[in-house]
Amino acid sequence: MENENLTLLAGGVTAPQGFMAGGAAAGIKAGGALDMAVLYSDCDLKAAGTFTTNVVKAAPVVWDSEKVKGGQSVRAVVVNSGVANACTGRQGMEYCQRTAEAAAAAFDIPPDSVLLASTGVIGRQLPIEKMEAGVAALKDAAGEGLEDGNSFAHAIMTTDTRDKQAAVLVKFKDGATCTVGGCCKGSGMIHPNMCTMLAFITTDAKISRELLQKALSEVVPDTFNMVSVDGDTSTNDTCLLLSSGLAGNAPIEEEGEDYEAFKAGVYTVLESLAKQMARDGEGATRLFEVHVIGAQNKADAKTIARSVVSSSLTKAALYGRDANWGRILCAMGYSGAKFVPEKVDLYFISDRGRLQILANGIDTGYSEEKATEILSSDAVTCIADLHEGDAEATAWGCDLTHEYVDINADYRS
Amino acid sequence: MENENLTLLAGGVTAPQGFMAGGAAAGIKAGGALDMAVLYSDCDLKAAGTFTTNVVKAAPVVWDSEKVKGGQSVRAVVVNSGVANACTGRQGMEYCQRTAEAAAAAFDIPPDSVLLASTGVIGRQLPIEKMEAGVAALKDAAGEGLEDGNSFAHAIMTTDTRDKQAAVLVKFKDGATCTVGGCCKGSGMIHPNMCTMLAFITTDAKISRELLQKALSEVVPDTFNMVSVDGDTSTNDTCLLLSSGLAGNAPIEEEGEDYEAFKAGVYTVLESLAKQMARDGEGATRLFEVHVIGAQNKADAKTIARSVVSSSLTKAALYGRDANWGRILCAMGYSGAKFVPEKVDLYFISDRGRLQILANGIDTGYSEEKATEILSSDAVTCIADLHEGDAEATAWGCDLTHEYVDINADYRS
Repeated sequence: MENENLTLLAGGVTAPQGFMAGGAAAGIKAGGALDMAVLYSDCDLKAAGTFTTNVVKAAPVVWDSEKVKGGQSVRAVVVNSGVANACTGRQGMEYCQRTAEAAAAAFDIPPDSVLLASTGVIGRQLPIEKMEAGVAALKDAAGEGLEDGNSFAHAIMTTDTRDKQAAVLVKFKDGATCTVGGCCKGSGMIHPNMCTMLAFITTDAKISRELLQKALSEVVPDTFNMVSVDGDTSTNDTCLLLSSGLAGNAPIEEEGEDYEAFKAGVYTVLESLAKQMARDGEGATRLFEVHVIGAQNKADAKTIARSVVSSSLTKAALYGRDANWGRILCAMGYSGAKFVPEKVDLYFISDRGRLQILANGIDTGYSEEKATEILSSDAVTCIADLHEGDAEATAWGCDLTHEYVDINADYRS
Repeated sequence: MENENLTLLAGGVTAPQGFMAGGAAAGIKAGGALDMAVLYSDCDLKAAGTFTTNVVKAAPVVWDSEKVKGGQSVRAVVVNSGVANACTGRQGMEYCQRTAEAAAAAFDIPPDSVLLASTGVIGRQLPIEKMEAGVAALKDAAGEGLEDGNSFAHAIMTTDTRDKQAAVLVKFKDGATCTVGGCCKGSGMIHPNMCTMLAFITTDAKISRELLQKALSEVVPDTFNMVSVDGDTSTNDTCLLLSSGLAGNAPIEEEGEDYEAFKAGVYTVLESLAKQMARDGEGATRLFEVHVIGAQNKADAKTIARSVVSSSLTKAALYGRDANWGRILCAMGYSGAKFVPEKVDLYFISDRGRLQILANGIDTGYSEEKATEILSSDAVTCIADLHEGDAEATAWGCDLTHEYVDINADYRS
């Protein structure tokens, strides 16, 4: 959805005006790693959010979703990595309250204006004294530079091997601009069914809270919800979109050209973050993009694309650079969506070439050697053309490797 | 569902009266391995069947399902391993016809009385000349002894590491008996959504074709359809139940005590085969049984049990003997079924002990060392008590290991 009104920028959550961020090492993780982060503003932020659909919801998900739905103005978001505060009962909610109160004292803001997010091991209680001391340290750490955004992006990581950030400048029809920035974390337990692990999107656009939520709710299903690393929908999935309103644009209070421009900016940031997350899937060696075209309707296209990127057999074949297209067609077939196998064309594409694998559901007699060459790239796209209609969808995943098993056989020790 | 009317027997498809079986090496697989098998009877067999729900159906699935639905009497089933005859277009169907004709000539039976099954690589055409020669060799190989059933069970294997057979003697209320035997293959691409890869169940019970199909259709959803190795529903899933009617029991022509006794026999054989298949999942080191009790209804219990055995994160943790119960609760939570996390009790059980992990959704403070000891067994059961009602269900899976990745990264070469 990039277009001439969008310009990619460096940075993440601090790219828009009005946002400070930072990270600190509170001792939740071993070895002095960054494990707490804050996103803070001097002004009241409007907040939109999407949250996990898992029946088992982490305490901070319950905390945030109540505040976002209630229209609460936000001043800060406090995040910790290492412990998920999920399956922690009443004490988990009490620790949310205590963390918010610590942040309120440190930043001199109301406790109700503090949102929370946690990621890490499920079922363990937060080390609350360390958290309270960590929040005070975050007050000194927060700043509005790019490096402060970097620090935030690193502090929220768990098994991630790299930080994930994106930012874009949006030009409105009257020449005014706003910025949308964001960062996310997520590497395992990634199969979002509302939005992904933790994502923090910021903007300085002046926009009503309703349209802020609408833009987020419209973009998440086509971006974060189209990523799958392992089919496991987390208890902690949270995506927040916060606006400071400092951009100076004409207020966006109804749908129209400016709303669409803003939404395109949100889409660009979320799509970039979604791809970064898939590429950094636990143990992954390559990004796998599946683009379904020619579908009868978008729902079918999405179902098929997501089924293919979620297939363990397809993911293992990709790791082995094996053009085992039978597994792709099989995963399309059990997805639940309708199509005629005998009409499917299939292509593999990467920076190393392009190859048609199937024509009308039958092997084209392609070169296996060439296919392996294409699949050796660190980013591989598969296009499936159903020849049924005009709808399309894209999903992102990664390969299934020994490292995935290593990471997850021994996560807690 | 074992009871005093059921006695486990040695053997598989040749255990009931009236069945001959055998295997041969036709050169489809490299290295002279057994790769063709026949199940044959001198009398007309009644046939029931369940087949894959994948939109992409292998040619032999199309062939068999038409014949079974049409009430066709069966004399022989010809199976090959190595090539799945899936995604093979019109030529795949022609090769079904040629294989059936070769069997008809070799065994002197009508081509329409021949059922077919294939398993192996998707998208490759059958080596039809080798198949035709193989069918002739099968005529000499077929016999009615236990070793002939063994030969059949071995010839249908692909990545399986062991054959899977079961048999049971069923006693009817008047003292008459019948036998139900069976064998199956399946190790990867196992997430049946009608029935599993390939299963061949035989019986000498005298029973109407309608009740034969009814018994199979009622038992498959609770047995084969509750196994998951990797979440991939195959294109070739086929389960056939064939009856010779030679047992001499009073004909079963309506539901009642004898039908229930027969169905219990079918259940016992299918449950045994389902567990054997899960234990032999590709790369698996241990069987994982998940038993959900106290559910509001059976559908919820099944959904939750199946979600847990399908979770990659849970499977990897089991491989690492890590009692990472958070992943289990998480997988229950995203299953789509309703329950209250705060009411869940969770137990791990094996031949090395029994441990309650969660009480009312909260960690019991169990010994991690003891839990690891229990999880080190080659068969581990997890019980989840929802405290919502009286319904229950069991699902079977296995752990996720490096060997799974090895097997599937390099399957075709």
